[in-house]
Amino acid sequence: MSLAGRTAIAGIGSTEFSKDSGRSELRLAVEAILRALGDAGLRPAQVDGLVSFNMDNNEMTAVARNLGIPELRLFAQTPWGGGGGCGTVALAAAAITCGQADVVVCYRAMNERSQQRFGQPPASTVPDGLVTGRALDNAWSRPFGMATAAAMMALSARRYMHEFDVTGEDFGRVAVQSRDFAATNPAAWFYQRPITLDDHQNSRMIADPLRLFDCCQESDGAVALVVTSAERAADLAQPTVLVRAAAQGAGSNHVQMASPYRDILTSAQETEVVARQLWTQSRLTPENMDVAVIYDHFSFAVLMQLEALGFCKPGEAADLVRSGATGRGGSIPVNTNGGQLGEAYIHGFNGVAEAVRQLRGTAVNQVDGAANAVVTSGSHVPTSGLVLARD
Amino acid sequence: MSLAGRTAIAGIGSTEFSKDSGRSELRLAVEAILRALGDAGLRPAQVDGLVSFNMDNNEMTAVARNLGIPELRLFAQTPWGGGGGCGTVALAAAAITCGQADVVVCYRAMNERSQQRFGQPPASTVPDGLVTGRALDNAWSRPFGMATAAAMMALSARRYMHEFDVTGEDFGRVAVQSRDFAATNPAAWFYQRPITLDDHQNSRMIADPLRLFDCCQESDGAVALVVTSAERAADLAQPTVLVRAAAQGAGSNHVQMASPYRDILTSAQETEVVARQLWTQSRLTPENMDVAVIYDHFSFAVLMQLEALGFCKPGEAADLVRSGATGRGGSIPVNTNGGQLGEAYIHGFNGVAEAVRQLRGTAVNQVDGAANAVVTSGSHVPTSGLVLARD
Repeated sequence: MSLAGRTAIAGIGSTEFSKDSGRSELRLAVEAILRALGDAGLRPAQVDGLVSFNMDNNEMTAVARNLGIPELRLFAQTPWGGGGGCGTVALAAAAITCGQADVVVCYRAMNERSQQRFGQPPASTVPDGLVTGRALDNAWSRPFGMATAAAMMALSARRYMHEFDVTGEDFGRVAVQSRDFAATNPAAWFYQRPITLDDHQNSRMIADPLRLFDCCQESDGAVALVVTSAERAADLAQPTVLVRAAAQGAGSNHVQMASPYRDILTSAQETEVVARQLWTQSRLTPENMDVAVIYDHFSFAVLMQLEALGFCKPGEAADLVRSGATGRGGSIPVNTNGGQLGEAYIHGFNGVAEAVRQLRGTAVNQVDGAANAVVTSGSHVPTSGLVLARD
Repeated sequence: MSLAGRTAIAGIGSTEFSKDSGRSELRLAVEAILRALGDAGLRPAQVDGLVSFNMDNNEMTAVARNLGIPELRLFAQTPWGGGGGCGTVALAAAAITCGQADVVVCYRAMNERSQQRFGQPPASTVPDGLVTGRALDNAWSRPFGMATAAAMMALSARRYMHEFDVTGEDFGRVAVQSRDFAATNPAAWFYQRPITLDDHQNSRMIADPLRLFDCCQESDGAVALVVTSAERAADLAQPTVLVRAAAQGAGSNHVQMASPYRDILTSAQETEVVARQLWTQSRLTPENMDVAVIYDHFSFAVLMQLEALGFCKPGEAADLVRSGATGRGGSIPVNTNGGQLGEAYIHGFNGVAEAVRQLRGTAVNQVDGAANAVVTSGSHVPTSGLVLARD
């Protein structure tokens, strides 16, 4: 059997997105979850599952306790940061489909800008003196300076440019389109602050060839989603947004981000594993999608994921973006909330909420008649994706 | 629908159990997984899912890379240490039932004795100066000395003694029975080293009322399980052991271990949440069980879980143990491998493997004709359980 269409995202909620929330990650989580439950028309007492990222600092039981959830029948986490975003929904959907839980809240809360910046290398490469876990993988490169996501992803970006004659301006057009959407989204950090391609080209180099405006923001905030059965969702407060497909994917020979020791560095291998499942499970194709939310920790990753998802052939995504297809009024608008380049970086979770709004018809940059949306979480790491659909 | 009977544990594998493995946790994981796959008659290339504990230090992608797994469609983790053990199987079973993965390996590898002892308080209560996550919960008690599992669990143990006239000797009988089973299990650390009740009573106090022999061991080692569909398992190398039920459970107002601020401290509330699901899902009862593997991080926790599972009424477990029912030749033998008190402490995962051996008929302390087994993981924390059955 398959979980296609058996569950729905019945509620979404978030805090404001900022650079300094001024309150704890626990409070952010609780606020977003209460809003998501309120949006769905449910109470905390009806929740019996919580799924989050293993990088979420909140103790899940503290989240449950502060919400007043009486008991949980599902609690799980996805590894690999942003790559796990849609994966939380996949775990929730499978559990609900099997009767393991009824109402599952997926959430991500972080003071990533004001508290623990991902854009800065951690103080210690080898915590507690033990070379174990992620430190083991990092031990071969971090001491030599490859210590941030930008540095790791830059290798893949450079090779992609070389292989397909892609330029920094091609990366820049992704950022310009995102900032264009953000400029008309009051929830976006970069609301009313669009950029030009010149602005992009003049922004400072972070990790060659990635410039400042190629890198997602660092943000404080939280987003929560309520997942339940399609039947139950039909009786709740919002129009039903079905989970038509949910999938995780990891590729071979994975190391750190971007797996620099692979033979091929110019394809988003993990996204390919996810894409295959999404289209099979949903029985839909890229042509059926009305809107896409593509994980944009870095501008160029959007290009590689568009190719991996089948929106175009390898090496052709830059042309697709240049054509305007992914921008405002295009055939497959991408990251209509402004994405993580423009709205906020909540480890991709704000993107899932945007897809839900598009399918409800309530997005600020609404795509007319949007019926199907694809969402990805992360790229170049073990990753995940969703196909969501209006019922 | 339900996942009852749709999946099976098709392979089990482990390293030796020691106090100093002399090799990395990554190598332990790979060794156990290769043995589990060999046991099932499968190759790493056939694995498409990995589930472990979020406390497992190994990077999941490093495990996959070192095994040569080409791609993953499921990767997830359970929080709360030993409480997540059976939960890994629950997540695997749900994913397999929904077609999200075919062959999922659940594993736990740790140099818990030689590397990072749980029995010793961590050097820092507030990592990186941030009061967040678990540190937030611990901040109210750890600075005052409640810094180990034994210290936290002792509160519940003392209240249980008070409420039900249970004594330290009642706790001791659990340990004596476990060490009796371990004494005839060559894989057990305490092989050929049984203890008497006097030995228990003379063992040193760790956290009043818990003595040394009330506390599980600290161990190095790894255990892996291969979960696949019941159909596929039927074609593999071993007799099929069905997952008749798999459940997770967390209770209200949870704090740290043992939740000292609850009104009632004398019931294993989380195990009650799990038990209700196990019996409903499996359509079996405690009376149908031939053998039980009850998470024994501390002797008294076995008593409280026997009550929560319905093997006896609240406060009657000490009598049940004293009657010999849970010992060798009893009506419901418990922890026939010697448990974590006698075999090894691999966060409960060695207990799942023992249940599988019992149902295959290959346990060293075999229960004649064992057809059904119940397994629990953790207690007094968000926890989980399984009902396994011979096909």
